[in-house]
Amino acid sequence: MSGGPATALRVEETRLTTLVEQLARVGAQPGGGIIRPLYSPAWREAQDMVAAMMRDAGLTVREDAVGNVFGRLSGDGDAPVLLTGSHIDTVVHGGAYDGALGVLSAIVAVEACAATGGAPRRTVEVVSLCEEESSRFHSNYFGTRSILGSVAAGEPERLVDLDGVTLADAARSVGLDPARFAEARREDFDAFLELHIEQGRTLVDSGLDIGIVDVITGFVWLEVVVEGRTDHAGATAMTNRRDALQAAARMIAAVEGVALAEGHPAVATTGMVRVHPGGANIVPGRVEFTIDARHPDPAVLDRMVSAMREQCGAVAADREVEVSVRLLKETPPHDLDPALRTVLQQAADACGASWRDLPSGAGHDSQTMGTRVAAAMLFVPSIDGRSHSPAEYSTPEDCARGASVLATAMCALAWSPSRAESS
Amino acid sequence: MSGGPATALRVEETRLTTLVEQLARVGAQPGGGIIRPLYSPAWREAQDMVAAMMRDAGLTVREDAVGNVFGRLSGDGDAPVLLTGSHIDTVVHGGAYDGALGVLSAIVAVEACAATGGAPRRTVEVVSLCEEESSRFHSNYFGTRSILGSVAAGEPERLVDLDGVTLADAARSVGLDPARFAEARREDFDAFLELHIEQGRTLVDSGLDIGIVDVITGFVWLEVVVEGRTDHAGATAMTNRRDALQAAARMIAAVEGVALAEGHPAVATTGMVRVHPGGANIVPGRVEFTIDARHPDPAVLDRMVSAMREQCGAVAADREVEVSVRLLKETPPHDLDPALRTVLQQAADACGASWRDLPSGAGHDSQTMGTRVAAAMLFVPSIDGRSHSPAEYSTPEDCARGASVLATAMCALAWSPSRAESS
Repeated sequence: MSGGPATALRVEETRLTTLVEQLARVGAQPGGGIIRPLYSPAWREAQDMVAAMMRDAGLTVREDAVGNVFGRLSGDGDAPVLLTGSHIDTVVHGGAYDGALGVLSAIVAVEACAATGGAPRRTVEVVSLCEEESSRFHSNYFGTRSILGSVAAGEPERLVDLDGVTLADAARSVGLDPARFAEARREDFDAFLELHIEQGRTLVDSGLDIGIVDVITGFVWLEVVVEGRTDHAGATAMTNRRDALQAAARMIAAVEGVALAEGHPAVATTGMVRVHPGGANIVPGRVEFTIDARHPDPAVLDRMVSAMREQCGAVAADREVEVSVRLLKETPPHDLDPALRTVLQQAADACGASWRDLPSGAGHDSQTMGTRVAAAMLFVPSIDGRSHSPAEYSTPEDCARGASVLATAMCALAWSPSRAESS
Repeated sequence: MSGGPATALRVEETRLTTLVEQLARVGAQPGGGIIRPLYSPAWREAQDMVAAMMRDAGLTVREDAVGNVFGRLSGDGDAPVLLTGSHIDTVVHGGAYDGALGVLSAIVAVEACAATGGAPRRTVEVVSLCEEESSRFHSNYFGTRSILGSVAAGEPERLVDLDGVTLADAARSVGLDPARFAEARREDFDAFLELHIEQGRTLVDSGLDIGIVDVITGFVWLEVVVEGRTDHAGATAMTNRRDALQAAARMIAAVEGVALAEGHPAVATTGMVRVHPGGANIVPGRVEFTIDARHPDPAVLDRMVSAMREQCGAVAADREVEVSVRLLKETPPHDLDPALRTVLQQAADACGASWRDLPSGAGHDSQTMGTRVAAAMLFVPSIDGRSHSPAEYSTPEDCARGASVLATAMCALAWSPSRAESS
């Protein structure tokens, strides 16, 4: 993972901005926002557009069996490949930067490296991952997991979208063959660099240019089910009720309280609530809600979950309702590669960009890639911290500065003579 | 409205129980509960069964243009008709007593009166109203409103069920002709008596036999819309959020607090909540919820609504979200007829039944009938206060005692010589 000394490269701001604007038109909705779910027509159009952009940048393009698109610049040795990129799928009514900026920055970064240094010492590839957002199926990191060979047998046939279409059938609809999915597995790369928007306000609030991610926060998803008693809203006295929603309201408030009590960077969110039977004149008998709790320190995350379970139990006892808390999903925190982080820090310094280490509250492909190879991430500022929203925005200056840092780091890792060679 | 002195009549407990059990089988679900929505096949079967029961009881049966079924026992004068009954439609997974018991008690009560007194002095009719529960359409009190001639022009074509079927088309499917709906209007009755289950716990908790309703509580339905900001649940610090659900949870708790602060019989309920966009890992940007607030005193109800608006506004200001509170529906409290209430009280005393005056927290056909003619209601105990549920239950003893009080009151009103005549 050693590289040469960082020589500052600079990508052209208008070049990157043009690519961002071009890709943002694919899946753009009349009322604002982008909808580009996995294996949709917009997704197909986006991957074809990215492939063309890669060719324009002088890369050799290949699409793998699951639809990840790679742009390759071959080195002269047989060292493992250096991979960089992100994903091009979006959430419903997402923005133009989440994922896309990492793919397009990687293209212009490699282009800038080649313009300065010619053919790389070691092979580099830009990847446009097919899926990260669970944009259509609960298939989180399907592109990365396919590359790592960690997709479960039968998963493509088991996962269905809201219309009941399986991931396998959706893949067929865009010309892919699920029988060949296993061919997406790669063993020939040893490092992954990902540029991404921060999706928070740390950088904008502190006026810094670049965030170098030290840890991707772990998270826990819980489902809480509250069982009270359905009653007539007119005929049942307040003191005779076992109202599941009134209990749930206190529990949901407690979820926030636990995160606030731990302090930053602890976060906890209830994003889904279902009330049964759901009539305006019926005292709710059952409520289900989710908890998403995150902290980079697994011990603190455990403590948060215990506190939330305890407080839900206390509310339930107080209000004579039943509560059950079920673990839906758990992802441990992931530390990013220290050597690659150093390369990014040196690249930022070389480019004159102010930076800080910071944790990522959101999950990213890097944490999955990082289970197998060295991985690191750099963040560019998100205006107002917005993301997963049409309001998502990063300035052209910030985008280009981030891509320049990425180019500088790529150059140090794959173009400059390695320290081993130069020493 | 004057009647003769109350002579206690007694209906046969097994006769009433048999009818209740028979009707409960119509629309009964394999897993428990009854589903008998307006103009469904089960509804058609139920009205046909009630018509047969009326004929067995010696009544002359007629179905009106909207499907209300009447059983008539003609008097010898031309005094206005005395009407008694309730509805046979049910909520989804409702019980065997709500509505049905009022219809079947009326049949056995009139039968008992005729068995003792022969032909009535004034004409009596038992009515099995087609709809009260908004069981399929938002058509609350459609049967009663048709009798009063207060259905709006075009309403049968405008109201649609969850499958998009109009009320008019649903009526056609059970052999009714919407073009003739207006013919359901009646001008020839001047009083309505309705027996119903309490749907609350006042009677069971106090060990009393009968409730004589003094007022049907007024209610207000509000829709509250909370607008915050959608954010990434992992990347957005707790202190940077404008979480619409966290705000709504405090508002929902405040709804309960306002009713508790006013004390019994004030009630307030949130029964529906919608969270947008509704992803487990997305900070909610918008929440809509309902408030159902009730109190028999309109001044107190006004005060409750003001307090809830104020507290929602305070939570919104504190949490930097927007809130709007919209009135969906409002029904003023309805006082039942004092003279008819006295007849019911005397009948209860004559039958040796313990009774109390009490307000009805639920809405009933009597409040709509009561806008045009004298109306009164008597309640029988609901075990555990349950209703709108398969667990709804009233003991055979309580049902028969209620029907006996109804018979005694009917006899005093329509069989005994009137005080005017006897004086």
